Amino acid sequence: MDDPTLHEAGELETLRRFLPLLPTGDVTEIGPGDDAAVVRAADGRFVVTTDTMLEGADFRLGWSSWHDLGWKAIATNLIDVAAMGARPTSLVVALAVAPSTRVSALEDFARGMADAIAEMAPGCGVVGGDLGTAPHATIAVTAFGDLRGLAPVLRSGARPTDAVWCVGGVGLAATGLRLLFSRAQDEAAQPAREAAERLRTGPQGRAVSAQLAPVSPVAAGMLLRELGATAMLDVSDGLALDAARVARASGVRIALDRVGVEGAARDALALGASLEAALHGGEDHALLCTLPHGLAPPAELAGHAVHRLGRVESLDEGQAAGVTLDGAPLEPRGWDPYRA
Amino acid sequence: MDDPTLHEAGELETLRRFLPLLPTGDVTEIGPGDDAAVVRAADGRFVVTTDTMLEGADFRLGWSSWHDLGWKAIATNLIDVAAMGARPTSLVVALAVAPSTRVSALEDFARGMADAIAEMAPGCGVVGGDLGTAPHATIAVTAFGDLRGLAPVLRSGARPTDAVWCVGGVGLAATGLRLLFSRAQDEAAQPAREAAERLRTGPQGRAVSAQLAPVSPVAAGMLLRELGATAMLDVSDGLALDAARVARASGVRIALDRVGVEGAARDALALGASLEAALHGGEDHALLCTLPHGLAPPAELAGHAVHRLGRVESLDEGQAAGVTLDGAPLEPRGWDPYRA
Repeated sequence: MDDPTLHEAGELETLRRFLPLLPTGDVTEIGPGDDAAVVRAADGRFVVTTDTMLEGADFRLGWSSWHDLGWKAIATNLIDVAAMGARPTSLVVALAVAPSTRVSALEDFARGMADAIAEMAPGCGVVGGDLGTAPHATIAVTAFGDLRGLAPVLRSGARPTDAVWCVGGVGLAATGLRLLFSRAQDEAAQPAREAAERLRTGPQGRAVSAQLAPVSPVAAGMLLRELGATAMLDVSDGLALDAARVARASGVRIALDRVGVEGAARDALALGASLEAALHGGEDHALLCTLPHGLAPPAELAGHAVHRLGRVESLDEGQAAGVTLDGAPLEPRGWDPYRA
Repeated sequence: MDDPTLHEAGELETLRRFLPLLPTGDVTEIGPGDDAAVVRAADGRFVVTTDTMLEGADFRLGWSSWHDLGWKAIATNLIDVAAMGARPTSLVVALAVAPSTRVSALEDFARGMADAIAEMAPGCGVVGGDLGTAPHATIAVTAFGDLRGLAPVLRSGARPTDAVWCVGGVGLAATGLRLLFSRAQDEAAQPAREAAERLRTGPQGRAVSAQLAPVSPVAAGMLLRELGATAMLDVSDGLALDAARVARASGVRIALDRVGVEGAARDALALGASLEAALHGGEDHALLCTLPHGLAPPAELAGHAVHRLGRVESLDEGQAAGVTLDGAPLEPRGWDPYRA
């Protein structure tokens, strides 16, 4: 049996093929194989975040390869660790798929995770997990990070006169999703794999890749922390909504400049996206942060372009925290899982 | 709108009602609300385990209440932390349900988690999570523990002459599941809620409760560690299979005595279960451990009965690690998620 299904192989044989493909990590004391793992947390604390990807709501197997899914599970979780200013150290993954799935699919998933870790957070390890079955594939990752003795960067630290910066582009992932829905479905609204693959290698491929296998600016989180970031978060639910979260948590107004947002959205705009997609489309996984006035990061961090989006302003008496675009109020509209 | 659906309430309002019901925990530095949480790990390491419960494969909403599901998610994860000899400190939970679910269902789920933590691991906190939607409910918990400066108890530490002990009963959860399947389904093989409730309050109620809302001996893990346990694991996939895991990891033979196993299975046997259910049925969440010869734990630990099941024996030249029952080889048959 060269490529058995999970049902044919069973759990033990599946793990025998799956586990060796995963990186063990620099700070793992006890990895997979016992009831739990043991991970070093040198500074006496650890950062933890969890994020789930569900077939249907979050991905479609006709568009995403298993390698894509492993990659994206890493990219979306590690950027949340990075957004605290921490270095990702390790993660656990719970994976439930149909028993008719081939073991080779799980191997591709493992390779996708390993490749994403090598690209975005070398030294990070997969220390444990859980395998199960479900009619719709379910991927639940929990990721950990090390603050290296520093205070975490929260959403609540933005101060008036700070400048607002963004590392990585916005709008591209939403543009990719729109392209897939408009050009890679068959007549029954089912994903058309070949059309998706053509889109991905075509002139709009960057947008499709940003949707299916994003490269998030993980290493930039630590660099921004060291530079003095006062607030930071991962732009995952749309720039307008995520900027509003910083504004509310910090009790300030985030004043975005259209020209700044257009800069961060230039790749998406060049592919015909509207500014709307850049402001309200989700899954960008860029880092939005505030830095004290006068502190300018380099034009590029960890391989991602850095854009100045605007500034932090104090609220007048009785004014609600929020976001403006060239001075006009911007609705905090974006991704809500219950209303999608 | 007194009890809106998640779709009607949206994520923000749902979180406003859900989060205050959860315990914050003794070692939480940054709890829910940011990209990630920050948890103290005083001894410079943390224990981590993850476990997923999926509607269909692992539970049915016609039998389990939302309170049960919150409770069971805690009981099954914290016992894995305890099986390392650690004290559970915190956890994150990712929950995906249909958008038509009532917010009150999530409140019941939160209360189930809180009640289970108060019962099994007071001081443990829910530090973060992720909400999403899925046609079949999906619950993914990742739990953390503190080793308090001690070495973790692994599966691989059993030594010849050690005695084998079990804290908590075996066979009851499998008996409860069998009862539900045989007596709480309608003619279309769908769960019958009223029949399940009658079963639960009837003479076989203990078995049904052990299946739907188990009380696992979480605090016993630390006590066994301090007593000198050489190997330990959570009996979740059946005593025979889990004992075989200790035997293989330790390179020994686990010699079980029928009279010992019957002692640990007495509640199940009293309800008419076969010894088969006690040996190969899953979801017991008892702690199986080995202790050096001569070290006897008290008859009860953390409110759970303690039973001596047998002893650890050395392998003869060329002999494979495994389990025997009164000297006869015992097949390591139990729960395999891919073959269920």
